[in-house]
Amino acid sequence: METHKATRISITVERVIQQGVLRIVEAAGARGYSVFHGDGKGRHHTHPVHRPAVAEGFSIVKIEVIVSDRAAADRIAEEIAAAYFEDYPGIVTLEAVEVLRREKF
Amino acid sequence: METHKATRISITVERVIQQGVLRIVEAAGARGYSVFHGDGKGRHHTHPVHRPAVAEGFSIVKIEVIVSDRAAADRIAEEIAAAYFEDYPGIVTLEAVEVLRREKF
Amino acid sequence: METHKATRISITVERVIQQGVLRIVEAAGARGYSVFHGDGKGRHHTHPVHRPAVAEGFSIVKIEVIVSDRAAADRIAEEIAAAYFEDYPGIVTLEAVEVLRREKF
Repeated sequence: METHKATRISITVERVIQQGVLRIVEAAGARGYSVFHGDGKGRHHTHPVHRPAVAEGFSIVKIEVIVSDRAAADRIAEEIAAAYFEDYPGIVTLEAVEVLRREKF
Repeated sequence: METHKATRISITVERVIQQGVLRIVEAAGARGYSVFHGDGKGRHHTHPVHRPAVAEGFSIVKIEVIVSDRAAADRIAEEIAAAYFEDYPGIVTLEAVEVLRREKF
Repeated sequence: METHKATRISITVERVIQQGVLRIVEAAGARGYSVFHGDGKGRHHTHPVHRPAVAEGFSIVKIEVIVSDRAAADRIAEEIAAAYFEDYPGIVTLEAVEVLRREKF
């Protein structure tokens, strides 16, 4: 089977910034994404005016984007971090995956 | 800790084909799977009779299957692609993971 | 973009043991986690007194934890296996990922 190398970006953030993150993902030219809802708990060094240092049981979304171009993945990750991670908790991970078809994402 | 190499197959598709995909997964001998519901947006080169070129805000499922045999993972991926990806959007990824126990999946 | 190597632990278990698994994760010093609800099907070699050999359509959770220290990931995985996997089905996977910021998880 022929597979293609790609990068999966997983962005786990509070629901309150979901729409803003998705605007960045779309503006970066990603061809699609998936959103999964969940619950999270984290200890975050966020701005004390905005939220407490320890957040418990908050609603999160995990946004998954698969891009064939690693540089594009880096750009998306950087833009989200610049826009939100001064003030909001969140984790962005990048992983190498193989995808079945290059033209469908 | 002793871990074993395995392959995670992640199949992200519209909910309408979930049952058909799961039949392929089970017929291929997978010992189990997980299904997560989410929302997706994608730009897909699908057959124009079936659905529009751009699908927005549709309901998706991500089906995760872990198999110890990479060849089995390839077969599952190929069969799903052959059965559905001419007519439906979807992404199949394969990733190397380590699992704690070989005998439990 | 500067990224850091980390390990993602994914723990897929029945909902009935979610709280116990999370206590282990927190006691191990993980700084946060995400929980996603889903459905699962598995064929499990579990104790026949506790549950049937084949479980169908049960409710599962996937708990994701990201740690920078692989040894900590191993400890979490081992403790969960020791506490639950004699009697309950479940899968623990470990994967290498890159994370954007070391200090936020």
